[in-house]
Amino acid sequence: MPELRRDPIVGRWVIIATERASRPSDFAHPMARPPDGLCPFCAGQEDKTPREVYVQGRPPPMVPNGPGWKVRVVPNRFPALMIEGELDRKAEGIYDVMNGIGAHEVVIETAEHDRQLKDLGDHDVTEVLFAFKARVLDLRHDHRFRYILIFKNQGREAGASLVHAHSQLIALPVIPRQVQDEIDGARRHHEQRERCIFCDIVAQERKDRARLVHENEEFVVFAPWAPRSPFETWIVPKRHESNFEAEPRERLAQCAQALRSTLRRLSAGLGDPPFNFILHSNPLRDAPSQSYHWHIEVMPALTQVAGFEWGSGFHINPVPPEEAAEFLRKLPA
Amino acid sequence: MPELRRDPIVGRWVIIATERASRPSDFAHPMARPPDGLCPFCAGQEDKTPREVYVQGRPPPMVPNGPGWKVRVVPNRFPALMIEGELDRKAEGIYDVMNGIGAHEVVIETAEHDRQLKDLGDHDVTEVLFAFKARVLDLRHDHRFRYILIFKNQGREAGASLVHAHSQLIALPVIPRQVQDEIDGARRHHEQRERCIFCDIVAQERKDRARLVHENEEFVVFAPWAPRSPFETWIVPKRHESNFEAEPRERLAQCAQALRSTLRRLSAGLGDPPFNFILHSNPLRDAPSQSYHWHIEVMPALTQVAGFEWGSGFHINPVPPEEAAEFLRKLPA
Repeated sequence: MPELRRDPIVGRWVIIATERASRPSDFAHPMARPPDGLCPFCAGQEDKTPREVYVQGRPPPMVPNGPGWKVRVVPNRFPALMIEGELDRKAEGIYDVMNGIGAHEVVIETAEHDRQLKDLGDHDVTEVLFAFKARVLDLRHDHRFRYILIFKNQGREAGASLVHAHSQLIALPVIPRQVQDEIDGARRHHEQRERCIFCDIVAQERKDRARLVHENEEFVVFAPWAPRSPFETWIVPKRHESNFEAEPRERLAQCAQALRSTLRRLSAGLGDPPFNFILHSNPLRDAPSQSYHWHIEVMPALTQVAGFEWGSGFHINPVPPEEAAEFLRKLPA
Repeated sequence: MPELRRDPIVGRWVIIATERASRPSDFAHPMARPPDGLCPFCAGQEDKTPREVYVQGRPPPMVPNGPGWKVRVVPNRFPALMIEGELDRKAEGIYDVMNGIGAHEVVIETAEHDRQLKDLGDHDVTEVLFAFKARVLDLRHDHRFRYILIFKNQGREAGASLVHAHSQLIALPVIPRQVQDEIDGARRHHEQRERCIFCDIVAQERKDRARLVHENEEFVVFAPWAPRSPFETWIVPKRHESNFEAEPRERLAQCAQALRSTLRRLSAGLGDPPFNFILHSNPLRDAPSQSYHWHIEVMPALTQVAGFEWGSGFHINPVPPEEAAEFLRKLPA
């Protein structure tokens, strides 16, 4: 059983995921990947994954775990957290620990091995976002979970171990510190000004235009004021909404258009770089919030986290967001 | 002039270091390095670096920037921050920015190109730590600076751009969030219990022994309870002291022994892995603290920061610290 351990000084949680480990001495190559011919995410290889928890696009007779699907969600075969068991919070001297309970799922974005998310049509990307929503709506019934983080790693340097297009979802029994920091900051802003800080940012970015990359009817895409990495790009709904899973399909379609356009620009401009994206939404047990606002953060993996970043939490970014936005704006979407 | 920009939501600072940048489109290879024959840190190449600000071991007649030295500190030729100018704090709409004022120095740990820090003798490592102390004592006179972060990147995967053994120092006009989080956590513990949390950790680790790697008269070396990465190892003074620069040479010699022993174990056990270390000490303008305690954190760069870590602040660590410590304990120091 993996463990969730809390650092006693700063309160950061760490997943000690023993099930994923090899021996300490074998640790030099943590990311072995299967030869492409054996890709477990391809059509026809459905028996190579755990049984699906969601599927879209499979024509009748719709045999579970058969072929013909467009989007498929399965439990991660090497999960960071385990779905079964009790949290069992306890102390070990001055330290805190609980069982590593959670869900860890893989969203297979297409049945085709060689298409990336950016290569799919807007309708297909909408179906991927709809799969995210469907999984959140299902998993929120499990009262052990307090937060669901949806994220994507594409490319080896961004932490992907398989090339077939996929994103991931981890349901957690605690609210991650990174999210709590955003919630706390947004709440302080709202207390002082009675406005949502994300709505304020959207307004300023649309007015300034210097960091704007793209906008459609419902979403704005921009390089944030203080980006951690070159070409970091945020996708934010124009209308205030704290919860991603509250968005109707029409707005998810607009989000899909904005996301796909962003990924195409990054790919065209930077030569298909490795990247991560993360989706931040309001915690599962909180009421809809006037101060928090869901959004997607896309981060190309072009720089390394080194000693200075580890030790300070500062990031050094050699590309001003105004230059990054100007560069991306001019590219075909 | 680089800029320090503050994220308006979470308060994270980012250095927008325009001087280090090439064109956005050139960004694919950020870490070109000179051929080894042209190493600017080697003996005899002193004119390839900015003029030294500290030197140790040069015999008479001690011509500045001449050869014969053992440790040499020079300004970074590609600094993240600029030493000259005013902070000039200002707002840009809802955003905060100030000039990127600071010092960025390189501590060249040996004149020999092929020796790593772990290959030096205890006496030589002591001189490196003494150089850190001397630079902190000098730079703290500059009242624009509030914190000095000392760190080392070794190996390309850990962010090093030159192979010649060196560490770095960045003096900052703000206290980094990572340090502030530690200070705040330690203060809360002290308010509740009137004890230093680091002293409590040292006591528990020495008693449990499961995560202990090494100890000498003055320092304890252990795998922390909630390590962010496999084989993360902390070096903490047994006696309470908030400020690294307050340590006398005898205790720096003990620290050097502990550090060198740690680096030798990591190198022997993990095949000379890339790593970072960072030195956390009390901020420059604060009085010596009863609740904060300086220390060194060593982190081998064996895993990648991917979407989940970016989005959550959680880390997934496949090696329990008890296993890491047992493995390291058995290796020759």
